[in-house]
Amino acid sequence: MYAPHIHNLVFGVSLWSCLLLSTGAFAADVAKSPHGPDDEMGVLNTLTAAQSLAVLQRVSSGKVYDLSVEYFVGMPGLADLGMGDPPYHIWMTHTPSGIKVEKLSPAGGPPDLALYDDAITMSTHSGTHFDSLNHIGYGDKIFNGFEATRYLGNKGWTKAGADKIPPLITRGVLLDVPATKGVTMLPDAYEITTADIQQTLDKQGVNLQPGDAVLIRTGRMTVWPDAKQFVPNEPGITRESAAWLIDHGAVVLGADTMGVEKFPMAKDSVHAYAFAERGVPLLELTWLEELAKDKVYEFAFIAAPLKLRGATGAPARPLALPLRAEKPAAPQALGQ
Amino acid sequence: MYAPHIHNLVFGVSLWSCLLLSTGAFAADVAKSPHGPDDEMGVLNTLTAAQSLAVLQRVSSGKVYDLSVEYFVGMPGLADLGMGDPPYHIWMTHTPSGIKVEKLSPAGGPPDLALYDDAITMSTHSGTHFDSLNHIGYGDKIFNGFEATRYLGNKGWTKAGADKIPPLITRGVLLDVPATKGVTMLPDAYEITTADIQQTLDKQGVNLQPGDAVLIRTGRMTVWPDAKQFVPNEPGITRESAAWLIDHGAVVLGADTMGVEKFPMAKDSVHAYAFAERGVPLLELTWLEELAKDKVYEFAFIAAPLKLRGATGAPARPLALPLRAEKPAAPQALGQ
Amino acid sequence: MYAPHIHNLVFGVSLWSCLLLSTGAFAADVAKSPHGPDDEMGVLNTLTAAQSLAVLQRVSSGKVYDLSVEYFVGMPGLADLGMGDPPYHIWMTHTPSGIKVEKLSPAGGPPDLALYDDAITMSTHSGTHFDSLNHIGYGDKIFNGFEATRYLGNKGWTKAGADKIPPLITRGVLLDVPATKGVTMLPDAYEITTADIQQTLDKQGVNLQPGDAVLIRTGRMTVWPDAKQFVPNEPGITRESAAWLIDHGAVVLGADTMGVEKFPMAKDSVHAYAFAERGVPLLELTWLEELAKDKVYEFAFIAAPLKLRGATGAPARPLALPLRAEKPAAPQALGQ
Amino acid sequence: MYAPHIHNLVFGVSLWSCLLLSTGAFAADVAKSPHGPDDEMGVLNTLTAAQSLAVLQRVSSGKVYDLSVEYFVGMPGLADLGMGDPPYHIWMTHTPSGIKVEKLSPAGGPPDLALYDDAITMSTHSGTHFDSLNHIGYGDKIFNGFEATRYLGNKGWTKAGADKIPPLITRGVLLDVPATKGVTMLPDAYEITTADIQQTLDKQGVNLQPGDAVLIRTGRMTVWPDAKQFVPNEPGITRESAAWLIDHGAVVLGADTMGVEKFPMAKDSVHAYAFAERGVPLLELTWLEELAKDKVYEFAFIAAPLKLRGATGAPARPLALPLRAEKPAAPQALGQ
Repeated sequence: MYAPHIHNLVFGVSLWSCLLLSTGAFAADVAKSPHGPDDEMGVLNTLTAAQSLAVLQRVSSGKVYDLSVEYFVGMPGLADLGMGDPPYHIWMTHTPSGIKVEKLSPAGGPPDLALYDDAITMSTHSGTHFDSLNHIGYGDKIFNGFEATRYLGNKGWTKAGADKIPPLITRGVLLDVPATKGVTMLPDAYEITTADIQQTLDKQGVNLQPGDAVLIRTGRMTVWPDAKQFVPNEPGITRESAAWLIDHGAVVLGADTMGVEKFPMAKDSVHAYAFAERGVPLLELTWLEELAKDKVYEFAFIAAPLKLRGATGAPARPLALPLRAEKPAAPQALGQ
Repeated sequence: MYAPHIHNLVFGVSLWSCLLLSTGAFAADVAKSPHGPDDEMGVLNTLTAAQSLAVLQRVSSGKVYDLSVEYFVGMPGLADLGMGDPPYHIWMTHTPSGIKVEKLSPAGGPPDLALYDDAITMSTHSGTHFDSLNHIGYGDKIFNGFEATRYLGNKGWTKAGADKIPPLITRGVLLDVPATKGVTMLPDAYEITTADIQQTLDKQGVNLQPGDAVLIRTGRMTVWPDAKQFVPNEPGITRESAAWLIDHGAVVLGADTMGVEKFPMAKDSVHAYAFAERGVPLLELTWLEELAKDKVYEFAFIAAPLKLRGATGAPARPLALPLRAEKPAAPQALGQ
Repeated sequence: MYAPHIHNLVFGVSLWSCLLLSTGAFAADVAKSPHGPDDEMGVLNTLTAAQSLAVLQRVSSGKVYDLSVEYFVGMPGLADLGMGDPPYHIWMTHTPSGIKVEKLSPAGGPPDLALYDDAITMSTHSGTHFDSLNHIGYGDKIFNGFEATRYLGNKGWTKAGADKIPPLITRGVLLDVPATKGVTMLPDAYEITTADIQQTLDKQGVNLQPGDAVLIRTGRMTVWPDAKQFVPNEPGITRESAAWLIDHGAVVLGADTMGVEKFPMAKDSVHAYAFAERGVPLLELTWLEELAKDKVYEFAFIAAPLKLRGATGAPARPLALPLRAEKPAAPQALGQ
Repeated sequence: MYAPHIHNLVFGVSLWSCLLLSTGAFAADVAKSPHGPDDEMGVLNTLTAAQSLAVLQRVSSGKVYDLSVEYFVGMPGLADLGMGDPPYHIWMTHTPSGIKVEKLSPAGGPPDLALYDDAITMSTHSGTHFDSLNHIGYGDKIFNGFEATRYLGNKGWTKAGADKIPPLITRGVLLDVPATKGVTMLPDAYEITTADIQQTLDKQGVNLQPGDAVLIRTGRMTVWPDAKQFVPNEPGITRESAAWLIDHGAVVLGADTMGVEKFPMAKDSVHAYAFAERGVPLLELTWLEELAKDKVYEFAFIAAPLKLRGATGAPARPLALPLRAEKPAAPQALGQ
């Protein structure tokens, strides 16, 4: 059931791509989901419990790699783009001294109970986070044709939000592009090509499979959290290389950058393409340094964003567990 | 290595408990961690990769239970306690129409690219979340003797925050107490006793093991998200039953309530006890309805809160995967 | 210059009112400003420096009445309406102990300098505040025909916001309606009629004049800040009595309630009428208790909302200074 | 009654100043208020209704100068100091399209009523604002000896907050220092000396009087709102010139900068001195360009910060109305 759907989507897009190239003009439209008019999950519909099981059974040692950065005041983020998004902020709502002054009565407890509470404000695109399919569309529509006029409230979309991204337990693949290129960090605005990706897969001895979460390392985290170095002109994939990855099975496109794609965005934006044309979410600001250092190129990828209803993105703390080498027969089993 | 440390802690506490009972006065103090003066993780230090591996190897079908509630404006939470905590709020920071009016130039993309962004404010104790060890202490100190005067900033603690809670992959155990009691939901302020827990374990045919994440169902989620019914006077465990659970291996105490323990809090608060005396985090507002319905009493528990630096709590989206029945020899292997 | 403009507006509206009454159907439209297509100030254009001077010259003793309520966590407000507006919140961003822990270096000062900073979140319609002309319109338009599609950004309107409300120094008139009615507080949802207003003016011995800020007391502040009593079903003026007040010179319609008009809103909303059809701002949640107690029925009214760019409302701290009885010749002087 | 209190305070401070100078060491303490142990208003206690009346009677034309800047996303502020304060943020909580999608029912109104609401977050020290006496103290105390341990809650101080600053109607004096110096803007970190002030007063032909709000122009607003030019190393007064101003009658020290005093702060901070030793509030980020252009050096100054309970500062929209030349006999009348 899985491949045909993807192929339909791929073929449609490929045809469209040809037209685009032949005319030189840009004219895209949102895709109709192969999973029905109510679908809000896109390609993540194709993941199966059997696939999750197969990956977990290959976990080698139980060692867990934490792919999330910390959230802290001053961390680089959307606020650094100058479009008015609020930066990450945390503050104390209760401390014992404040509670005493305010004569609050927490609900019981011993006299010397010391209660501390805090609260946060942040862009939903802060730190390690998923981009939902409703983050970017074309014109008035997002993926599967949902229109802003019908589904966009002041408290977020009622369609295709972060709450619709299911828990993901699938194979993850690291693409350590700077290692392939022999550099610490890819240069600013570097376009990661399909050739770069193929070369990296070859070097790493990994093939892509349907259902993979592909995490692309650019080395950008080596300058984290220096916003001046980190934020402007990120290196990243292009529409062409994104298409290649999705065509070869990627269901999540992740990176160690804020935007996954090369910035400034090209006319044929990877964001819009992945969400609106392919139904593929992005995963941004992942911490891939330990995986890269230990040359862990395939792993069980376990991730689930906070279920912020309707949100265009949501933080997550993705985990990676190295896998044993796959037995030859395994891939066939996945599609069953 | 594991059991003795715990035992030391247990014995110390037990001795203290005796004194407490004998005098009738309450006088508690924070525990010194058996994991050293710099320890900020408490009992979670005792989890091992081998234990994670063993659990993952027992995953039966790959079916994933999502233990998180959604986050939405109006959801019950700390704000309902009348202590001034901000409620969950989400708003749009960018929409295509707004971007056009504001003449913003997102970084490139096609002319009809439609960008949507949102931002949130919330208590760190919103929705499904972990309570960090620094959430509650006694007097000026929290777990392991960290003093507020030295370690409490305006942007949170610099010790024992949510960022110090490691990714957890361990066995989870559901205690469906209302099922044992033959009710839909435990009554308001019901105290879940050690006997209730033992009876539930017996009924379910499960034994606790060191390293378990114990999730206690009270049935409270059957009235979610009606704050008036949900919030006041929650049923929950007591210090005595919490102690029994920790003594029998629980490293996380979770529930489908805001507070895990019975409210109003007793003089001998479970919160303070778990964090400050035992180094055990809580996990609150978990969604256990599907597990209960399917009678999934043991499972691979996979959870990791957002790494909000220093925060007294952090949202998480915990997952549960049912396990095959354990082979007789497995438990012995875990402690090595 | 002043009267004709107003009359045009009044006549247009009156004609329209007749049609409305005769057909029984409701069909309103936003007014075209008599002050030109770029006008964002509405009737406030008609206030003159000469008028301000004349009022100030009549100030009797210099005693100042503070017409603002305090802002505090838990104060009644939009958040109580259940539409998801954030409640007023204040928190400390810096305290000496936090600064020390965070090793911040405020810019110099002595070693024992103790710095305290705080921050707030609130609806722009919190506490004593003006409603801007862009707060409510009809269809896609607000006062003077400004369309949301052209002028509504994610950070507020670019037209007719609180920043466009000029400083107001004009005559204020208190209408103590409960005093007229012989009650402490008008009943819930009480409709203040034109007759009530006329009766009150007669009883108080005051006539309205062009340029007046009219503040209507309902007595609702006698239950402030009890949100349960204060918020639902406020008493207030109707479209008819609002029209009468504006026709007789009112340039600001204020009250001691959240909404000035009777709630639930009638089909012919005073808000929409005042802003969109008449170009008259509202002033809400004013503290009129001292004025009423001292029977100060006319006064110098001095008010200016915070210049929150584009905002649909903004807090203010209006002041009132009692006036000496007017000399017979004064009114003629005002129009010069 | 007025002068003696001030003199006591002045003498005490002067004596202390001598000691300070003689030893070369810095050792300050908060002042005990001459207005009693419960006083939270400091020098503002000395303002009288008679004084307000006298000033209003001298208003010449009724022309109003608006001394407030606008509040907008991206405005310079505390957030630019890198200490983690949240920047000004505004967002829409309701728009007609969102209300429709969310199926909200505002309380009545016509079917085509179009409701727009917004909300804000900001530091209380944003835009044109007063600094309260509790903003800065020494050690654990602020003005009049109020201790943080007793009076500082998580929602602000319970003493000496912005809500305790009464409405101010008093004489305002502009000191256009760059005009005296023949420059557009004072250089970065320029220390405005007592001599500069005296020279400016002479040039302007104005004398200070008890009760004056003194607004010092540095010309900094000529680079507003460019945060990079505006924020770092502001020019401003020193402790010595602040003392001279207060000794000569200033009850508010205002400026067109974020800090009034020269930055980086000297060891003998004007902030701490004015608040904690003299009970004098500051007024920051005032817009003085029009006053300066029109050479309006004395004026009726009307200002009142939002009554944010307990806050260390609060926005205000101060107004200035030019005065007629004073009659010789007037000053004597003020003290009565």
